[in-house]
Amino acid sequence: MQVNIALKKVVDNSYNITIDTLPTLHFETKVAIVTNETVSAIHLEYLLKKVSAKELHVVTLKDGEEYKNQESIDLILESLFENRFNRKSLLIAFGGGVIGDMTGFAASIYQRGIDFIQIPTTLLSQVDASVGGKTGMNNKYGKNLVGAFHQPKAVYIDPYFLATLPSREFSAGVAEIVKMAVTFNKVFFEFLEVADLNNHEILQEVIKQAVSTKADVVTKDEKEHGIRAALNYGHTFGHVIENETKYKKYLHGEAVAIGMVMANEIAVKMNLMNEKEAARIKVLLEKYNLPTSYKIENSHSFYEAFFLDKKSSDSSITFIIPIGIGDVTITDKVDAGTIMCVLNKFGES
Amino acid sequence: MQVNIALKKVVDNSYNITIDTLPTLHFETKVAIVTNETVSAIHLEYLLKKVSAKELHVVTLKDGEEYKNQESIDLILESLFENRFNRKSLLIAFGGGVIGDMTGFAASIYQRGIDFIQIPTTLLSQVDASVGGKTGMNNKYGKNLVGAFHQPKAVYIDPYFLATLPSREFSAGVAEIVKMAVTFNKVFFEFLEVADLNNHEILQEVIKQAVSTKADVVTKDEKEHGIRAALNYGHTFGHVIENETKYKKYLHGEAVAIGMVMANEIAVKMNLMNEKEAARIKVLLEKYNLPTSYKIENSHSFYEAFFLDKKSSDSSITFIIPIGIGDVTITDKVDAGTIMCVLNKFGES
Repeated sequence: MQVNIALKKVVDNSYNITIDTLPTLHFETKVAIVTNETVSAIHLEYLLKKVSAKELHVVTLKDGEEYKNQESIDLILESLFENRFNRKSLLIAFGGGVIGDMTGFAASIYQRGIDFIQIPTTLLSQVDASVGGKTGMNNKYGKNLVGAFHQPKAVYIDPYFLATLPSREFSAGVAEIVKMAVTFNKVFFEFLEVADLNNHEILQEVIKQAVSTKADVVTKDEKEHGIRAALNYGHTFGHVIENETKYKKYLHGEAVAIGMVMANEIAVKMNLMNEKEAARIKVLLEKYNLPTSYKIENSHSFYEAFFLDKKSSDSSITFIIPIGIGDVTITDKVDAGTIMCVLNKFGES
Repeated sequence: MQVNIALKKVVDNSYNITIDTLPTLHFETKVAIVTNETVSAIHLEYLLKKVSAKELHVVTLKDGEEYKNQESIDLILESLFENRFNRKSLLIAFGGGVIGDMTGFAASIYQRGIDFIQIPTTLLSQVDASVGGKTGMNNKYGKNLVGAFHQPKAVYIDPYFLATLPSREFSAGVAEIVKMAVTFNKVFFEFLEVADLNNHEILQEVIKQAVSTKADVVTKDEKEHGIRAALNYGHTFGHVIENETKYKKYLHGEAVAIGMVMANEIAVKMNLMNEKEAARIKVLLEKYNLPTSYKIENSHSFYEAFFLDKKSSDSSITFIIPIGIGDVTITDKVDAGTIMCVLNKFGES
């Protein structure tokens, strides 16, 4: 005999991203702001003037990708348990992508899921990590290998926070913006080639363009069964680079910048992109002082590392290869010879 | 400016529960069977004759509620990483509720979510844990406080496994069946009063009734925003009892049996149930040698422990109180005096 559990239904995970000066926010529930030492020192006072709640707690983690781990998740959860948060309580992620991903993951597993909102403070997290609902943490096997899809209830992007952002981190954010332009929007790419991001209004417009581009993709493919994978352009290589350098040498966006240059090399080899287009992308990245070269010590172990990346399926590696500027293909049909040839080239450089 | 992320869509998490001799199953992906030492020793050989896959791995955990923790989750995840499971790989939960909950939780967070199926081997997990998609683990703050909602792709209930189940565990399963009858189905309750569960066909019918009852509730309320909370009848008390006895003295179903008796006392005090009905429920529980009394050492600390239970909201405790037999109310309007009166009564017993 058989019993069918009918769980087909309309689920609405929609939310708004506000790109403007942070409004005042009041919550009738318990709220925990999760942040790191760096952001806290500079911006917590500003935030606390804007946020009120039934009970307001602050969880301050150490700053850095190397703390994106189980211990930090446990620190967040412990604070929620100690303060008796319930299913109606709320988390606020206040920091960059690391804080956003971990806060979202903690929210997704605390009592089987509570709400969270994002107030991203870096350009990278404003344009990328705050859109899409990917949450997670790293472990010894790699980056973001444990996590959940958990959409925020709202995102507030206040460009005010960027004024204090180190220029290297600002550039790392630009790398993800370039990524979205190359894969989906040629007009946006050409705008970036001439844009002055020191101009507040232009910066705000660029953030909006990047967020809208990503929003389009995520809306079509929330759980990355198809087109959303294109946003991993540069990431297949970038993750291996981050892993090889133990997340210490490069910021995420910097590793992605190198990864995009590597993916472009494959595109050129496959005649999907001409050398001039590859050079334009490199020039745009270098305009923001992003790294575009990397010395691969051992191309075989670099190649082997692809297979541990979660975007790979059993026996093949999925690559995101741009088709010129503004279009992209997702393929596992890149032959190993082409890949090794590109990896070897970076071995020499 | 504002960008809306439109994520409203139809999600289909439907699945079938098959109550019959386990069919042969073949999977084209990597599969890991997660089980415990006890089940493995008795039934793994039988299972391996039925299941084949591209690659088949077995993760064997220690048996017991005290191993429903982060360490066991890590053991499962490590095996998946070491064997390079990807997003298309599958887990099979092969054991009781503890194995089912942990396997489901590991599946929900591995690479942000992979599929799992359930082959429950205890009566309790067949009628209760295998329906509803609740997954999780315990920690020092209590039971199932970290977890996710993650629906299985399929559930196979083979009553063959029950033949080797210790009678105490069988009874613990009956407690959950009684729970479902008391809260939702008077006819089913009356059937149970006269049913002979040693008869294979009657047992199979009872399992189907219990599963169908729970399926109805879960279908209406997948994430426990309303009526599904009624399934926690007996659990608000039961969890505190399990916690006080460190999950060692009572099986989950046994603690729930005591919890139901406590909830019935409140129902009687509130004139929602008469003493005769309360007695009938007690008689049915005792027919299966389930415990119906418990000595509360300190009613104040017992009361205080309610507030850490995740089903409670900030300032009030939600109780599931039966209305006679076959109906139920979910209320946070039970006054503290009534509760303390009942707790004190158990303090004397």
